[in-house]
Parts: sequence; structure tokens; C-alpha cells
Amino acid sequence: MTEPGGSPAERAAALADAARAGDRRALARLLTSVENHTAVAEQALRLLYPLAGGAHLVGVTGPPGAGKSTLVAALIAQLRASGRTVAVVAVDPSSPITGGALLGDRVRMQSYASDDGVFIRSMASRGHAGGLAATSTSAAAVFDAAGFDVVLLETVGTGQSEVEVAAAADTTVVLEAPEMGDEVQAIKAGLLEVADIVVVNKGDRPGAQRTAAQLRAMLTPPGESGRADGPSARRPDVLVVTALTGEGVPELLAALDRHRADGAAEAAPAARRARAAAQVRAVLAERLWERLASPSLTPTTDAALERVARHETDPYAAADALLAALGREEAP
Amino acid sequence: MTEPGGSPAERAAALADAARAGDRRALARLLTSVENHTAVAEQALRLLYPLAGGAHLVGVTGPPGAGKSTLVAALIAQLRASGRTVAVVAVDPSSPITGGALLGDRVRMQSYASDDGVFIRSMASRGHAGGLAATSTSAAAVFDAAGFDVVLLETVGTGQSEVEVAAAADTTVVLEAPEMGDEVQAIKAGLLEVADIVVVNKGDRPGAQRTAAQLRAMLTPPGESGRADGPSARRPDVLVVTALTGEGVPELLAALDRHRADGAAEAAPAARRARAAAQVRAVLAERLWERLASPSLTPTTDAALERVARHETDPYAAADALLAALGREEAP
Repeated sequence: MTEPGGSPAERAAALADAARAGDRRALARLLTSVENHTAVAEQALRLLYPLAGGAHLVGVTGPPGAGKSTLVAALIAQLRASGRTVAVVAVDPSSPITGGALLGDRVRMQSYASDDGVFIRSMASRGHAGGLAATSTSAAAVFDAAGFDVVLLETVGTGQSEVEVAAAADTTVVLEAPEMGDEVQAIKAGLLEVADIVVVNKGDRPGAQRTAAQLRAMLTPPGESGRADGPSARRPDVLVVTALTGEGVPELLAALDRHRADGAAEAAPAARRARAAAQVRAVLAERLWERLASPSLTPTTDAALERVARHETDPYAAADALLAALGREEAP
Repeated sequence: MTEPGGSPAERAAALADAARAGDRRALARLLTSVENHTAVAEQALRLLYPLAGGAHLVGVTGPPGAGKSTLVAALIAQLRASGRTVAVVAVDPSSPITGGALLGDRVRMQSYASDDGVFIRSMASRGHAGGLAATSTSAAAVFDAAGFDVVLLETVGTGQSEVEVAAAADTTVVLEAPEMGDEVQAIKAGLLEVADIVVVNKGDRPGAQRTAAQLRAMLTPPGESGRADGPSARRPDVLVVTALTGEGVPELLAALDRHRADGAAEAAPAARRARAAAQVRAVLAERLWERLASPSLTPTTDAALERVARHETDPYAAADALLAALGREEAP
């Protein structure tokens, strides 16, 4: 890859080409641009997006302490053993400052530093202008276009945006640890709604099989053998895995593949449309905001926001006034 | 309050009036409407918003297990003892299904069921069309307009949206528990960035004073006596509190009052503008999306989203095409 130079369009084309060709530095640089919502990132994404769509996007989420990073590491090993390449978008709940230090298991992943078939990217969970879902979906599209077979989206299961990221994948894995108290039972029930596959981790602990049995019972509506409320109208698989030793991980991979094969006809298109809608919405909101921040409209916009801040008007009236100002601006 | 009837505008006016007059059923009903983004909620908010602005909005956030609900209960007691009324918007990380069951301490708050000076409202953290920040800010505005002196926004400190809710308050309290491991140290550093006041809870534990000393050291940049990067360019107070017994809570309330008095001249207007911008952005995005879902544009919108989902086009091209379609639609 050459050093950056030329117009944004030229640099975007060079970055996109290099990323597709497997240049890891180019890929890393492009992902940084995507996180920062630069003009180069937009141009590169426009080139790469039509080339994406082949990867299997797998969301991995669960409460803190359930062992997400360990499971992701085990999945990487299993996918590599089966000859597939894998990229990870890990949404890190810590700040950009402390970044990678948060998850001790990330160290384990550094054993893949010399393997071109693995790429791990941590993203901060705060400060995304277009929203976390839009940024991480764009990052996944970059990996997808770069030819990775599987893209894992790893998020902590305790935030609105974070759960939505995992839920918008083709297949969503919700991880649980056995023997948890009442508080986590409640979180569990909330997370289960988005699960295509439920994994009870730490399967070597005494409570694991019991937890799995409880989860299966929770997931079976009374008087029915399958649930009818989910997008795929079927009951998620519940698997017991010991991520640390790899036990149960081949079965998890088989379940992921099965879900993808089944899902191609039902759930996945819905997930893909939801991702598309989230991305288009984010771009629309950005475009609108950019126009309102244009030199000619900035005074109007600032005055409207100030009036809302002072409670002299309400956000609805301000939004409608700004839309009207935008319409006048654009009229010939 | 009369039973609902009449046009949305009439029902909104009746609800807004009743909420202002202190009718708790009306307040509860209005908050449900706000959560569901109904037309009645919009009309009522437009009436109430100009009456808001007098309350002190206090964000309370921190990692799971730090004792947020216990601290909120202690703050309620202290505020009531000082003759002030208080409303709580608690953003619940569990699903609507399991809702209130999550936090055991919520039960404690039911002791205020007969006190009109306290109103506690749990909100689900998922499924808000306009975003969690916009919904919870609207709920806070309702309480504000209804005359509550203090509105506490309680959120878990492990999600993008959740932290943003607390950070957008006039004063943000970040809660920590002593003696936590490395993982939580990192979360701590991330959360500290948004703190106006840091509270070490469980002050009766041996590690509390040491944790407070560590936090003070982290918050003092080398060679400086105050930080210069925050919105208020000053170092947050670090207090030790035992929420369970109430020890240190009067000092916390004094710190909150002091921050508000100081902040009126510096940080608070910025927080108010940030809240206004978040709300106006949310309304703009909603308005735009509503127009794209109008009968005449739905086929165009659906086709564009489908093409993005199939990777036949990219989200930027689709957004621009939709904006152009919208412009043609609105041209005379």
C-alpha cells in the first residue's frame, strides 16, 4: 500500500483495493476511518458495500462475566480448524482511553497475530456520531467485502445499542454462565428475546446442565413445542459449552452453520433488512444534520437549539421549524 | 382526571393539565405515552416543555453491583428530609417482560408509595424508536414541568446509550464500589470521563478509603491541580458514602447543590444544549422516517432498503436517492 495522498476519492479507492487484497495495514486504517466517519470512509464503503454480503455475521452477546471473549477465542480456533477465515468486531464498553486493556482474554487472541485468516478489531462503545449499530455494521461490511468467511460481532449484553448490534447479525448467540442469582435471571430473560442460539458457558460447573434445562423450559411456551413470537418463529437451540477447554464448541459451530442454512430462507433476510434500515437511517440523520450545520443554516440551527435548551420552545416545534428552513433553503 | 376521550389534542391537554396538577395516574399514563411515542405524548410534551427547566437533573450511573438503587433510595430520603420533591427515571437493562423484577432495591422504594413528593418510574432500555436518550429526556421534562425539584436519571454504566443518558444530566454522579478487580478498573476509567461527582459506595468496607484515594489520584492530571479537558474544566469531587446506612449522603447532597450552583454559570448550559440537540435530532429523524413511510413513498423506500439488504447498492447512495425522492415529493 502506498502512503496516503491524492484526493479523498483516490485515497478511498486505494484503501478499498488494498483492504480487498488482504493488506492488513490498509484494513486497520480503513476501520479507523469508519470509526471516525471520515469522507474517505464513506467513499471506501460505497466501493466495498456491493462486494459484501457473502460473510456469515454472527452476534455474540451476554452479561459481563459470562465468558464472551473466551468463547470468541474458542470459535476462532474452531473456524480456523475448519479452514474458514474470521474477523471479530469487539465492542468494548470501556473508553477509548483504556481500550484494549479491558478484556484480559484479548491477550489470548494475540496468538493469531501472524495468521492472515484472523482479524480482531476492538471498537469503543461511545462517541459514534451515526450510532454504534451503524458503525459496527459498516465495520462488518468492510470485513465481509475483504472476503472473511465469518464476522463475529461481540458485545456486552447490558446496553440498548450493544444488544441491538448483536441482534442485527444473521445469527445471534446469547451466552450465559451457570449458577447466577436473581438479578442475572432477569437480564437473561431480556437477552433471550434476541437469541437464535443460547449457550451456557462454563459447562464444567455443577449448575450448567440445570441452567440449560431451565433455559429450555423458559423458551418453550406453555402448551406449545415451538415459540411463535420470534422472527424465525422457532425455539432457539440451548447448548452447553466449556469455552476454556473447547468442549462443545464443534457442536456450537454446527448449530451456527445449521441456523445459517435454515435462516437463508427465513430469519436472515429480515436481519439483513433491519441492518440496511439502521444504516440508511443513520446516513439520513447525518445528511440532515450536515445540512443544518451548513454556513447558511448554522445561525438558524443554533438559535433553535438554544431556544429548546432555554425551554422557550419544544423540540417538536424546533424540528419542524428547521425542516421548513431546510425546505426554503433548497427551493430554487 | 376524566377518562380518555376526545381528539388527541384534547386528551393531550387534559393529560398535561392533570400531570401538572399532581395527578399521579395522569402522570403515569403520560409517561407510558412518552415511552410509546404516541401522538398524544407529542402534543402533551409540546404543552409541558416550555414549563420545564426548573428541576435539577441528576444522572446516577455506575457498573452493575455498585449499589445505584440503594444510593438512589438514600438520596430520595435525604431530599425529602430537606423538603424537596424528587422523581426517578430508572432505565432498566432488562426487558419490558421482566421489568421491575430486576432490582431488588426497588422494593425499598415502595415505601414512598403514599408520598406525593416522590415518583419512581422504570423504563425499559430497549425499543425506543427515537433513542433511549430522547425518551428519558422527555420523561425528565414531564417530571420537571410537573414541578418536581430534583429528577434522578438512574442508568447502568455499561452501555453507550445508558451512559449518555446520565452524562446529559445537569450533574452526573458516577458510583463505584471499593475493592474491584482489573476489569472494573477499566470500566471505571471510562465512566470517570463523564463524572461531575464520583461516589465510592460501601464506605464501610476496608478498601473504600484506598479506592477513593486512587480515584483522586487518577483524576488529578500530572503537574496540575485541576483537569482542563472536561466541560467544566474542573476535577470532580470524590466522596465516600455508605448508601445502605445513609452515611455520607448529606455530604453528597451538599456536593450536588454546590455543583448546581457553580454549574449554572458553566457546565449546565452545555448539558442543556446537548440534551436539546439530542431531542431535536431524534424528532428530525422520526419526521424524516415518517415521510419516507407515507403511502406515496413507501414503495420507493422499501425498494431502496431491499437493494441495500441485497448489497446491490450502498447505504449512502440509498439515503441520497431517498432524500432526492423526498425533495421531488415536496416540490409544488
